Amino acid sequence: MKIAFIGLGNMGAPMALNLLKNGHTLNVFDLNQAAVQTLVDAGASASASPKAAATGVECVVTMLPAAAHVKRVLTADDGVLAGIARGATIVDSSTIDPASAQAFAKLAAERGNPFVDAPVSGGTGGAAAGTLTFMVGANAGVYEQVKPMLAAMGKNIVHCGDTGMGQVAKICNNLLLGITMAGVAEAMSLGVALGIDPKVLAGIVNTSTGRCWSSDTYNPYPGIVETAPASRGYTGGFGTDLMLKDLGLAADAAKSAKQPVYLGALAQQLYQTMSKHGDGGLDFSSVIKLYHDVGAKR
Amino acid sequence: MKIAFIGLGNMGAPMALNLLKNGHTLNVFDLNQAAVQTLVDAGASASASPKAAATGVECVVTMLPAAAHVKRVLTADDGVLAGIARGATIVDSSTIDPASAQAFAKLAAERGNPFVDAPVSGGTGGAAAGTLTFMVGANAGVYEQVKPMLAAMGKNIVHCGDTGMGQVAKICNNLLLGITMAGVAEAMSLGVALGIDPKVLAGIVNTSTGRCWSSDTYNPYPGIVETAPASRGYTGGFGTDLMLKDLGLAADAAKSAKQPVYLGALAQQLYQTMSKHGDGGLDFSSVIKLYHDVGAKR
Amino acid sequence: MKIAFIGLGNMGAPMALNLLKNGHTLNVFDLNQAAVQTLVDAGASASASPKAAATGVECVVTMLPAAAHVKRVLTADDGVLAGIARGATIVDSSTIDPASAQAFAKLAAERGNPFVDAPVSGGTGGAAAGTLTFMVGANAGVYEQVKPMLAAMGKNIVHCGDTGMGQVAKICNNLLLGITMAGVAEAMSLGVALGIDPKVLAGIVNTSTGRCWSSDTYNPYPGIVETAPASRGYTGGFGTDLMLKDLGLAADAAKSAKQPVYLGALAQQLYQTMSKHGDGGLDFSSVIKLYHDVGAKR
Amino acid sequence: MKIAFIGLGNMGAPMALNLLKNGHTLNVFDLNQAAVQTLVDAGASASASPKAAATGVECVVTMLPAAAHVKRVLTADDGVLAGIARGATIVDSSTIDPASAQAFAKLAAERGNPFVDAPVSGGTGGAAAGTLTFMVGANAGVYEQVKPMLAAMGKNIVHCGDTGMGQVAKICNNLLLGITMAGVAEAMSLGVALGIDPKVLAGIVNTSTGRCWSSDTYNPYPGIVETAPASRGYTGGFGTDLMLKDLGLAADAAKSAKQPVYLGALAQQLYQTMSKHGDGGLDFSSVIKLYHDVGAKR
Repeated sequence: MKIAFIGLGNMGAPMALNLLKNGHTLNVFDLNQAAVQTLVDAGASASASPKAAATGVECVVTMLPAAAHVKRVLTADDGVLAGIARGATIVDSSTIDPASAQAFAKLAAERGNPFVDAPVSGGTGGAAAGTLTFMVGANAGVYEQVKPMLAAMGKNIVHCGDTGMGQVAKICNNLLLGITMAGVAEAMSLGVALGIDPKVLAGIVNTSTGRCWSSDTYNPYPGIVETAPASRGYTGGFGTDLMLKDLGLAADAAKSAKQPVYLGALAQQLYQTMSKHGDGGLDFSSVIKLYHDVGAKR
Repeated sequence: MKIAFIGLGNMGAPMALNLLKNGHTLNVFDLNQAAVQTLVDAGASASASPKAAATGVECVVTMLPAAAHVKRVLTADDGVLAGIARGATIVDSSTIDPASAQAFAKLAAERGNPFVDAPVSGGTGGAAAGTLTFMVGANAGVYEQVKPMLAAMGKNIVHCGDTGMGQVAKICNNLLLGITMAGVAEAMSLGVALGIDPKVLAGIVNTSTGRCWSSDTYNPYPGIVETAPASRGYTGGFGTDLMLKDLGLAADAAKSAKQPVYLGALAQQLYQTMSKHGDGGLDFSSVIKLYHDVGAKR
Repeated sequence: MKIAFIGLGNMGAPMALNLLKNGHTLNVFDLNQAAVQTLVDAGASASASPKAAATGVECVVTMLPAAAHVKRVLTADDGVLAGIARGATIVDSSTIDPASAQAFAKLAAERGNPFVDAPVSGGTGGAAAGTLTFMVGANAGVYEQVKPMLAAMGKNIVHCGDTGMGQVAKICNNLLLGITMAGVAEAMSLGVALGIDPKVLAGIVNTSTGRCWSSDTYNPYPGIVETAPASRGYTGGFGTDLMLKDLGLAADAAKSAKQPVYLGALAQQLYQTMSKHGDGGLDFSSVIKLYHDVGAKR
Repeated sequence: MKIAFIGLGNMGAPMALNLLKNGHTLNVFDLNQAAVQTLVDAGASASASPKAAATGVECVVTMLPAAAHVKRVLTADDGVLAGIARGATIVDSSTIDPASAQAFAKLAAERGNPFVDAPVSGGTGGAAAGTLTFMVGANAGVYEQVKPMLAAMGKNIVHCGDTGMGQVAKICNNLLLGITMAGVAEAMSLGVALGIDPKVLAGIVNTSTGRCWSSDTYNPYPGIVETAPASRGYTGGFGTDLMLKDLGLAADAAKSAKQPVYLGALAQQLYQTMSKHGDGGLDFSSVIKLYHDVGAKR
């Protein structure tokens, strides 16, 4: 399959490599020439613009930081919509707000191009290993069409509903993740302050009704889960500023829908405090530092 | 083993019955004579006071609403400490604040009686089936001593550390439970408001990083988990007012420890709003009504 | 002075009328022809576009719902910047985010036009009476230049600093207003629930350290301040949805600045709950309904 | 008038001195003998117990840290109720929960003693100067009876309603004070982060709808109000731990009344964070340190 891949950052580059490995032919575009060169070395063709990349392909994949970038890449004079053939599919794997995804889908539909929102979870590790989860918003026919291509980059390809619903699934999950992580930080810190051994407390919670991924797989207290960022100084993992981005998308979507997000809005302020302190690059589980001195400088 | 059982409410009565079934001899006391009669019919002896019940037994079990009741039952002129033999053990299965548990342990120790805090989870269903979880605070020797007796009433007997740590484990777990449930309510309601199918969203969350007991086992959205209270009008289960009691204990313990509980304090206000509206008797997952019209009257 | 006035809504129309009354000559533009006709009847000239309105004037005043509208009015092909003479001043009285104001100022400066942000407080009553407060962001020279014109529409013309600082002052004040109003609602409701007479409580608060505008001038409890919306069913006044807009601007600015707004974010959710319930059109002091049955249907 | 004064701490001692200065005869009691000696030197008689102090007086005044102390002083074997003459009045100026005040009133009434709750505001400065505000809960007859005596210690004597209502007024006012102070800290910090001059912002807020005592009289930003603790390193004033005590009383009363206090509970966590950091002794306006580096070490 002939594919254009636009956006070769920490996530996009390994995703594109996996497409190449699975035998697809790739046009690539990024403003960062070093990133482009890596893909060219692996067999891709460099394009001079999103328009050039999109010309003559069956599918365009975009992986960009925010909705504003997606808009520019799609609608600029030298953008994707200026070059893409009628009927070719656009798959946006960026995490953006659902309303923008739906607006882009409308724009694309006017030109005869199906638009699919397919944000991912799994981080840079999952991108490299080809084990990402794709949350896909598309009608059933288009979903079946893009599924094999996505399977070259991910392990779980989940159909979430029509356009925009991939983004909805992503931000709702991450809203809950942001809340549960801060909740675990709060409960673990309280327990330790009251004298319980943190491993004992985690053991009880993990076999009881407080059980959650933030506790049993990614516990923010150091030394509970050996593979979690908490056990290596909160390095690697999912950065606080990335969590803030997703909580911001959730809060904005909630505002549009006039839907209160009490705990989410409060959790957002907690991560924002971390970011203000210069810890936006640490894994988001470092939010526990607001509750407890875990051996770090704060 | 000769045991005194004091407090024959919704939890205490079935627990006492399980002790009888396992061959123990029981003195029972409660202000409610109907509750006492049920136990007497099953083979227990009725006592005229906590003091009388405690006289001549190897172990006293208390299961009472709050610390004030435990204090009265232990220290009144006709209370447990006035009758109990030196060396006999006191096991309090009430959910109370850790500091009170530690104060009672000190009082009991002065008379030569080990005191064990052993709050439970599992609800009235677990009490009847003998499948409760006991979170036990005691030194190792006393823990080994009471474990077989507790095993007659429960399935999981967990040693949480010294006196008070059973209570710490219980309130920290339930603090987190109160937060995650409100978090799931928030995320599910936002998703539905944005157009996603609630079953699809729950399916994604439950296999992703938002996964938690409040979502995969006890989801507050109707129709997601057939056995959850949400699928039967929020009846049965763990009442909002009971959750409020536990969040209150957590908040008070946090205040004493000068430990912030941002999300817990906010969750407490949400459940308090439900209680104010007259819904304190509904299962605590009904907190979703604050976010979303789930077919109920609010 | 020859002025273009763009945006003749509930606020803009009476403001423009006051400019006419003070002897200024006006070009006006709005998409709503009825609004335009009212101004024409009062002596203004109707223009076919923002560009046409801006052509040949010394000053352009814009009064629009949001930053997106200001951007379109300024930068469209038939926009203000396409028609305005070099050196003429642009005064934007819309309430928008400070970053957009600063971006517009940069665009305008490139064409040689000073740009002033001058959001107002005082509501439609103040607009009609010419008693608005203008919070002005501009350098000192430009401020002195526009001050006399603003004085035709308002009573207090306050210099807040350079471009953008008018918007900063506005959103910070309204952030605090949204918090204090919900705080008064909370304190009054708690007091009444505990048995105190609301007039007695308000009297004490208003002469003590809890004193604030939301309590002494605009108390949300019915019957405390006769002229407040609470005493007429929460009609008129400053709508909940307008407060939500301003809290949204504050939250977004805080996000950009990585500055936590704990209470503001929570207050936002409270007003959002009101809006979700269909009460977005009521005065924002109706937030007390979340705490207390004040004789209304909730 | 012959009066017993019990509790000679930072507040009680200067209050008792003012009673002496106004010609009253005083029996005094405190566990701290140095405090007793100061009063004896000024003309008071030292008593060996609350009972002894209360014997033969027309009125007993108590000024103690918490409800538990009041209970002990009233009901112990050597307590006030064991010595006081039938008909003599008890005035408790401690800040405690309204329910305890009402319970003490019931106890006292059973012995024929009117009980008045009369908590104060005004701090140690007001206590020394005799300018305290007394918030008095009592029936009208008893209120008139104690008013002249209270006027020897304070400037504003406010009748808040029946027994308990003095405490209700105090905790509702301080709940609002805790919220408005954190709100001002949030708004000032956001403004400064966005570039506005803090004096300009305070000036605007103080003449606009954000106006409140926490901004115009006690602004938490250094250098805005010269006489405020913020301008002298947050020393003196009303300590964070005292604010925490009052917010705790409000939260507990709200819990009993099933009344949500969203903002109050969140504010409580903010002050609790300060206290955890070792800043419980600083003036409560130092809560701004959580938002902003105001030249201090955090």
